[in-house]
Amino acid sequence: MNYQFSQRVKDLKPSAIREILKNSSAPGVIPLSAGNPAPDAFPYEDIRTLSESLLADTPVEALQYSLTEGYAPLREYLKKYMAEKYGLGTDNDQVIITSGAQQVMDLLTKTLLNEGDTVLCEAPSFIGSLNTFRSYRARLCGVPMEEDGVSVEGLAKALDTEKNIKYFYTIPNFQNPSGVTMSLEKRKRVYELCRDRGVLILEDNPYGDLRFAGEDLPSIKALDQEGVVMYAGSFSKVISPGMRVGYAVGPQEVIQKMVVCKQGEDVHSNIWAQIICHRMLTQRDYEAHLRRLREIYRRKSAVLLQAMEEHFRPLISWNPFEGGLFAWCTLPKGMDMLDFVKRGAERKVCVVPGTAFLTDEAEPCQSFRINFSTPTDEQLKEGVRILGEIAREMQG
Amino acid sequence: MNYQFSQRVKDLKPSAIREILKNSSAPGVIPLSAGNPAPDAFPYEDIRTLSESLLADTPVEALQYSLTEGYAPLREYLKKYMAEKYGLGTDNDQVIITSGAQQVMDLLTKTLLNEGDTVLCEAPSFIGSLNTFRSYRARLCGVPMEEDGVSVEGLAKALDTEKNIKYFYTIPNFQNPSGVTMSLEKRKRVYELCRDRGVLILEDNPYGDLRFAGEDLPSIKALDQEGVVMYAGSFSKVISPGMRVGYAVGPQEVIQKMVVCKQGEDVHSNIWAQIICHRMLTQRDYEAHLRRLREIYRRKSAVLLQAMEEHFRPLISWNPFEGGLFAWCTLPKGMDMLDFVKRGAERKVCVVPGTAFLTDEAEPCQSFRINFSTPTDEQLKEGVRILGEIAREMQG
Repeated sequence: MNYQFSQRVKDLKPSAIREILKNSSAPGVIPLSAGNPAPDAFPYEDIRTLSESLLADTPVEALQYSLTEGYAPLREYLKKYMAEKYGLGTDNDQVIITSGAQQVMDLLTKTLLNEGDTVLCEAPSFIGSLNTFRSYRARLCGVPMEEDGVSVEGLAKALDTEKNIKYFYTIPNFQNPSGVTMSLEKRKRVYELCRDRGVLILEDNPYGDLRFAGEDLPSIKALDQEGVVMYAGSFSKVISPGMRVGYAVGPQEVIQKMVVCKQGEDVHSNIWAQIICHRMLTQRDYEAHLRRLREIYRRKSAVLLQAMEEHFRPLISWNPFEGGLFAWCTLPKGMDMLDFVKRGAERKVCVVPGTAFLTDEAEPCQSFRINFSTPTDEQLKEGVRILGEIAREMQG
Repeated sequence: MNYQFSQRVKDLKPSAIREILKNSSAPGVIPLSAGNPAPDAFPYEDIRTLSESLLADTPVEALQYSLTEGYAPLREYLKKYMAEKYGLGTDNDQVIITSGAQQVMDLLTKTLLNEGDTVLCEAPSFIGSLNTFRSYRARLCGVPMEEDGVSVEGLAKALDTEKNIKYFYTIPNFQNPSGVTMSLEKRKRVYELCRDRGVLILEDNPYGDLRFAGEDLPSIKALDQEGVVMYAGSFSKVISPGMRVGYAVGPQEVIQKMVVCKQGEDVHSNIWAQIICHRMLTQRDYEAHLRRLREIYRRKSAVLLQAMEEHFRPLISWNPFEGGLFAWCTLPKGMDMLDFVKRGAERKVCVVPGTAFLTDEAEPCQSFRINFSTPTDEQLKEGVRILGEIAREMQG
């Protein structure tokens, strides 16, 4: 048979991260390229006991077909919880439960975007989302990142000059990959700019609860009374990524269309996992769990920072970060970043080349991403030591 | 905000089945409209004990990120199992694990179809799949069903006259909604016709293991040595639909593109459920479980058949069926089917109007679908009695 693929698929490439992940689980490899939560961050005991009582007491609830929009008690609880804890959501907003926040990116794109329409995004940005947008044949337009978030001038210019913009995609907290957090001032400006142009904001916040330094900032959605922001949340980094439970809070007109699209994609998300997440929020001390997580990542980030101080100075610099799972590191001018990453892999230290996060992978980039949640302390120290060594070798 | 939806979403309507399901769970309603497995068909004890040991012994396996293509031991086992039990699959075939078989429909369509391309399907056919195809702006072309499966002449004609056909969608066993099983002779003819025209076959087999009468027939995929057939399977009807675990077996060139599309949709499917399904197949007596299921549905279908003999004759007729979950019933000429369904709903008996399963809902149709797996025996008897009464009232 001769297979004729759709136009949207012909140009798609597997995510560079997933491809690298495949090799990074080989024996002996130091996986600084991953994005997995730390294995000791999972609430094993809570999940085990919650699952036991669920499957013993009301198993049919966990095993039968359920509603496309998600487990009703979880939707209702999230709406209340997000409003009370983060001041987020209006009476006109609804919640949809998705198969990971990745599906929020997918469903919103499916709902809004015609082939060739434009998505504005931060440059660099999360490759998984960029690939989702690409799979709908979006035209990606990257707006440069600055130390305090996306360039407001760049965004204003893009909003003025680009055609058929469907939304602006942003990760305001501990952005993946740059680690940057958008300032409050910029959140307000970004909100106003998009509102005034009638362009939706897709606010992706997988790491917001993983702040281990500095002060919490209001989400952009918390500024929104006019239905401008679709907020994407996830339990992947705070409960379990293998469960695949994410959610969106946004204007009901849009959420309802996303529900129709979700019907066609997977009918509904795994219901056992939705119930476990609901009970984790309501029957366990969830805030204490989050404090424990932040402590884990505070400690691990300190291990990374100390190793970088020791082995990266002065050749390799990095963005300051106050939460999340990643450090964004930059090589000196003139040093070949892709060659550096390749040499790392040859010595079994995997990092992700910064070009993977650009709207155009062919653009020049001196940066690479290190994850500090997956590796052990020893792997972090050893990996950074080897990377520092490679940089010095390349510097000659 | 004024929301601008994509063209593909503008015309999409929520699935009539899902909309009816919402009301069918209201108190006092007799849910002959559903498609849920019988609650006593779930292997509660097996799932509970398998989950307990999984979450106690290797919880990180069940909670961490996993591979997009699915849990490797399940993929490998399914390949072997389908080959040994059903003679299905070649060396060039691969397996992908999906979020329910619904996602196979979605991913294959995303992989093959450009907007406006044609999908051939049986008429009537499963509304959930039709809506998925529609969400990619497929042009649906229905081929009439006959007592022994799709019309071969109709299929040949459609293959000759339609443009840009990407695949033919068929449910050969106990088709939803018609209950019809395709004869072996027709399976061969359908295979040859599509192969000769270079058109893929999407063979959807959610009910194949639920045969309670007659003899098993080889799947179309079992005839396929040339990569013509994409086979979709599911654990929804045989283990649990709430788990959302489906799979496809098909040519690796196509499966690999589907994996790339799946990355962008949900990264991977819930891994706990994948491991439970794998252990259900390998650590429990799965064949005994299937025999128990068939016994349950044989008994329930007999309850329905007896009630229909008693209350439907001579006004309402039905297609014979040897498995699955549905009976396809037809009103006498001249009786208004939609009015009949509406009168049923007013008396709290929900069935699905046959028009919901057509490529064009405006076409005339005298049939409706009854599900016999979800209702209790008493509900089946009472529901059929009321429907029979309505038909006699309408006959006047």
